[in-house]
Amino acid sequence: MHPYPIDRTCEQIAALAYPEALRARIEARWAGLTKPVGSLGQLEEAGTRYACIRNTAEPHLEKKAIYVFCGDHGVVEEGVSRYPQAVTMEMMRNFARGGAAINVLCQAHEMEAVIVDIGAAGAKVEEVLDCRLANGTENFAKRPAMSRELAASAVETGIELAKEAAGRFDIVGLGEMGIGNSTSAAALLAAFAGLSGEEAAGRGTGLDDAGVARKARVINESLALHQPRNLDALGVLAAVGGLEIAGIAGFILGAAAQRLPVMLDGFISCAGALVAKELCPAALRTCLFSHESAEQGHRRMLAFLDARPMLALDLRLGEGTGAVLGIHLVEAAVRLLMEMATFDTAGVSRAE
Amino acid sequence: MHPYPIDRTCEQIAALAYPEALRARIEARWAGLTKPVGSLGQLEEAGTRYACIRNTAEPHLEKKAIYVFCGDHGVVEEGVSRYPQAVTMEMMRNFARGGAAINVLCQAHEMEAVIVDIGAAGAKVEEVLDCRLANGTENFAKRPAMSRELAASAVETGIELAKEAAGRFDIVGLGEMGIGNSTSAAALLAAFAGLSGEEAAGRGTGLDDAGVARKARVINESLALHQPRNLDALGVLAAVGGLEIAGIAGFILGAAAQRLPVMLDGFISCAGALVAKELCPAALRTCLFSHESAEQGHRRMLAFLDARPMLALDLRLGEGTGAVLGIHLVEAAVRLLMEMATFDTAGVSRAE
Repeated sequence: MHPYPIDRTCEQIAALAYPEALRARIEARWAGLTKPVGSLGQLEEAGTRYACIRNTAEPHLEKKAIYVFCGDHGVVEEGVSRYPQAVTMEMMRNFARGGAAINVLCQAHEMEAVIVDIGAAGAKVEEVLDCRLANGTENFAKRPAMSRELAASAVETGIELAKEAAGRFDIVGLGEMGIGNSTSAAALLAAFAGLSGEEAAGRGTGLDDAGVARKARVINESLALHQPRNLDALGVLAAVGGLEIAGIAGFILGAAAQRLPVMLDGFISCAGALVAKELCPAALRTCLFSHESAEQGHRRMLAFLDARPMLALDLRLGEGTGAVLGIHLVEAAVRLLMEMATFDTAGVSRAE
Repeated sequence: MHPYPIDRTCEQIAALAYPEALRARIEARWAGLTKPVGSLGQLEEAGTRYACIRNTAEPHLEKKAIYVFCGDHGVVEEGVSRYPQAVTMEMMRNFARGGAAINVLCQAHEMEAVIVDIGAAGAKVEEVLDCRLANGTENFAKRPAMSRELAASAVETGIELAKEAAGRFDIVGLGEMGIGNSTSAAALLAAFAGLSGEEAAGRGTGLDDAGVARKARVINESLALHQPRNLDALGVLAAVGGLEIAGIAGFILGAAAQRLPVMLDGFISCAGALVAKELCPAALRTCLFSHESAEQGHRRMLAFLDARPMLALDLRLGEGTGAVLGIHLVEAAVRLLMEMATFDTAGVSRAE
């Protein structure tokens, strides 16, 4: 029995008041800084949102982490990825040794990289946080990816991790690793937003046109099998989701309940936000969105989430790489908000 | 007599070979790193370009600066800005005391902020690099902004500064401050790209519709007066340019001759790149472009420069603020290129 069940967490989130008066106060502060009003563009909104999530007029942002949720996917049997399933484990060992892109970016930005094995298939890696609930999911083209109970456990694991993270970090970016997980993310998008497999599926790690067509067909057939229209959010997650996506969804819920800002990454990370939204729409109030990726369904997914990401660098790597860059922009915004001189203190004339 | 005349600098730039073999070598390095090929998107191209500009397969990026060129503009007499001319000097004092946005961003990113007075009007500021050539420009709606000799001196001052910077820094961002300078930048864009005042003029620091219309009219009348079609690049610069824009143009030339990468900022900074391109097209080979600003002419200007900026954050502040963020992305790219593990060393399987 998990100490933080989904329903109670959603109730906590819904009970949090949104600080409208604080927003007005932060916006007035921006307007008094020595620059034309609004001229820092999206940085101003990022800083304002961070302060409002933290519920303080004196925000600071110092302790940062990226949580990389790792899981495997039975649907790789259908030939939906260019990489063998073993790469999930190989990359986890690469994370543990510090050789992956997310390690380099975290080190460059003084962020902790927390690698979470929530459902990879293969020998466990010692340096990785062991939260494994299963050795990957089932092939959802044939049967549900997981039981409803397993899906709930994965979400609750994410809630617990967020609760613990809230005591250690000021902001957390949410990344992932899992061969086959862009197929699961696309299936979730198609199910929740009412899209076809063709509209939701993209190249993932680099499929050619035939590969994308096969992936779309697998998604269409899986949705015909599971009939997501008859399922609630947890049911859809169990049918075509992944353990790392469920963990991310749970982390978002737990973070929202704790006023811990989270920075989403790309297509798979945002699929976690999709699930979180379906479980508890108010959970998105503590979500920040870093970038629009090169994965073709990401633009639709962001629109469905009503999210406006800050960056568009054609990234399509995952791991939380875009989230690092997004957190960096928020950090810059907070420093500008708190450290710039005002027109009055600097003796600079205002607009006529 | 300046030791680095424009013509000789342009000859040096034209003589530099572009390292095609090196580019292929860097691209092969990216392809061997533990990530799907091309999945770091624009970061890969940024890292590759940086290495090619530095002409090395082992790039490092450590010493960074933003040069903020400051100048005043006689055309403010025409009511083209919401701020009084005194703000240029007030902001220079703010830069000297560390209270402006560029100071905060430079401190956060361990970059030196070098403030250059190349032509402000008012009492000099002690802590600022004194390269002042005139107390602002003339009102170009009535007469040329400056003499041809003064324009050449300002460009040559930029060349000298770049020559000195090349010995101290690995990359330099180019920012500016000068009330009225978006009118000069728009006039240069209109003159070089054959646009109308209406196509080139934007809100600057925050003009309303009537203000933008007045600015466009001033530009149209100024171009009718000076007939830029009959002038060479230096002649156009003298007619409607600014001292800080000329300094930036010169810095770009000097940097190109020294293989010093420069990061452009917004609309006015890129007007310096326009002038540099007209003086010596090959100078753009060492230019990197940070962001597309909210100033409406910037998109056209970037297209005319054949430039693809990395960011679009609706910034419209100048000072080099966007250039800081752009340099940060290049720095991240270089670290990824140099520090990530390869498929071979990490024992990760390649795509099938």
